[in-house]
Amino acid sequence: MDEQTAAGRLAGVRRRMRAQNLDALVIMGAENVTYLTGFMGHDSWVLVIGRRAWLITDSRYTEQAESECVGCRIIERRGPIIEAVSGIFGRNRSVKLAGVEDTCPVATYRRLRRGVDVRLKPVAQVVEAVRRCKDPDEVAAITKAAAAAWKALNAALPQLQAGMTERHAAGILEFEMRKLRAAPSFETIMAFGPNGSRNHHQPGERRLKKNDTILIDFGARVGGYCSDTTRCFAFGKAGRLYERVYYGVLAAQKAAIRKMRAGVKLCDVDQCARAVLEERGLPVYGHGTGHGLGLQVHETPFMSKAAKGTLRAGDVVTVEPGVYIPGKLGVRIEDDVLVTETGCRILTQDRRFGFSSTTMPVLPGR
Amino acid sequence: MDEQTAAGRLAGVRRRMRAQNLDALVIMGAENVTYLTGFMGHDSWVLVIGRRAWLITDSRYTEQAESECVGCRIIERRGPIIEAVSGIFGRNRSVKLAGVEDTCPVATYRRLRRGVDVRLKPVAQVVEAVRRCKDPDEVAAITKAAAAAWKALNAALPQLQAGMTERHAAGILEFEMRKLRAAPSFETIMAFGPNGSRNHHQPGERRLKKNDTILIDFGARVGGYCSDTTRCFAFGKAGRLYERVYYGVLAAQKAAIRKMRAGVKLCDVDQCARAVLEERGLPVYGHGTGHGLGLQVHETPFMSKAAKGTLRAGDVVTVEPGVYIPGKLGVRIEDDVLVTETGCRILTQDRRFGFSSTTMPVLPGR
Repeated sequence: MDEQTAAGRLAGVRRRMRAQNLDALVIMGAENVTYLTGFMGHDSWVLVIGRRAWLITDSRYTEQAESECVGCRIIERRGPIIEAVSGIFGRNRSVKLAGVEDTCPVATYRRLRRGVDVRLKPVAQVVEAVRRCKDPDEVAAITKAAAAAWKALNAALPQLQAGMTERHAAGILEFEMRKLRAAPSFETIMAFGPNGSRNHHQPGERRLKKNDTILIDFGARVGGYCSDTTRCFAFGKAGRLYERVYYGVLAAQKAAIRKMRAGVKLCDVDQCARAVLEERGLPVYGHGTGHGLGLQVHETPFMSKAAKGTLRAGDVVTVEPGVYIPGKLGVRIEDDVLVTETGCRILTQDRRFGFSSTTMPVLPGR
Repeated sequence: MDEQTAAGRLAGVRRRMRAQNLDALVIMGAENVTYLTGFMGHDSWVLVIGRRAWLITDSRYTEQAESECVGCRIIERRGPIIEAVSGIFGRNRSVKLAGVEDTCPVATYRRLRRGVDVRLKPVAQVVEAVRRCKDPDEVAAITKAAAAAWKALNAALPQLQAGMTERHAAGILEFEMRKLRAAPSFETIMAFGPNGSRNHHQPGERRLKKNDTILIDFGARVGGYCSDTTRCFAFGKAGRLYERVYYGVLAAQKAAIRKMRAGVKLCDVDQCARAVLEERGLPVYGHGTGHGLGLQVHETPFMSKAAKGTLRAGDVVTVEPGVYIPGKLGVRIEDDVLVTETGCRILTQDRRFGFSSTTMPVLPGR
């Protein structure tokens, strides 16, 4: 991150602080800390007062902070982190009201209230609101993560064999990511056969059989940024029902994506995908149609039935309708999309498995 | 988990609830939920009122909950989780004061306060206090996780080669765990050469060189339970300083373990390890000497300078002194130990790399 980017992000946070009359903001969310300072370690907070920002860390991370941080002063604390915060407030007497991220645990908030001489107020979505609009470098990072994910998938698929467990197959895919200098952005969902209907299936001992279907929900993380995609495969012949469901889900996803541009209601995109499935007489999914992603795999905005608000230029969101028939099969197709003023751009393109493919992928099934 | 175990755990929680005059307890911590019900999914809460317990989940997890849960009623919510909690309170009018785990985010606590008709109180370490004392099945699970970790290490080490990056090497080790039906219990620390001095090093692009030292801090998770161990290797010749440091750390660890039994002060175990390093003129580490582990990699008790309290029979803790010389090397040796009335039992035994080895491990270095 360069100084200008760091300054721009801090300015966005300060604008939102002023709107809430906050003299200071205590930032604890790890991704918010990374976003504002570039620091990728853990257990560290950022304190913003006026134009200044401090990263409060400890000896484990000082070396890392010094090489990563931009636009903030690094404090290596010796005692409890709250004492360090209190010390900075003590040297900045003009601070009357400080915001604290409301994702903070109750216990920490209470300790903070006892430990500092300033009025506190829990605040929601301050840094997150700035993070929502992705800049070109962030979009490039997500695209890079997606490219690594596809490359890993391309390397992993030929290694899948009948008899292999879900857990082993997930391990192969994650290892291929590691070899590409990426890491899984979340625990890979690798579901064989009817397990595909369990939306958050944890890969287990189910073994791959000829003519199974395979659902893979996976992502890579590169430079802190995540991708999140789902693909389904027939491992041999998959049968008519699967085929009907597959093309139904694909049509639903394409319809939703066609609808997307800045200004469109979040709930309308959601409804658009569901309508396609309903028309085809397919059961409609219980989860939302998509979510923002960036430094976190799930972040604002969320596209669901109940969602308020509209898409904005700079949003990067997943689009992931699905059909789940318990005991039989599950199909979900998921891509990552950048919203623009006039439409959207797919970040998960790939020659073989990317968004552009319109045919149902079939593996040899051996 | 059998019914009797579930009932015993719930009884332990209820005893602690009574001591705080709580009529109900809202449990959100994922590991606490798993501990009380056997449920391994996410985004689900447990509500305890009197002798009864409810697991509140959603359609994504209902199938899984039905196959895993013991000793509680499963509620599949349709709306927000807080409405479901409020509904149960509404049917249990005798509840006046409910505890809420203080690890809960401030935002959730505030929404809960607005959404339910009952007085709330943040409470600390209720389920955690019961979890601290491990039963024989839990000890067996941790031992199994450790065995998987050693097996994976044994399979991974011969694959390490000069020129390989830390990230790649970490990937190999984690993949070997996956093949054994285990998962990494945390992101593997794989540090080559001077990177070993960074306590929480994230594996990167540093390549392995002949005569490097290798620090590997890793763990496996089996059936929800974690192991956490660290081993250091010379990849070829490591030099005199490394050797002196290695045996110093080993002696510190052995001294601490010899001291451990129920009733010994946590800070005394910590001090014991440090004293050995000081005697040998080696720099003393900045982190604690050990931490509890079980369903979480870090849980109560913590053995540090400032720790209050004593070891208790049934504690499972790591013992992990280290010496870090920035720019040069880092050595940490870590094993997992069950505390008993008369001493302790090492859970991380292994023929090759387990606790029993008293010689510095050297790899061929090719």
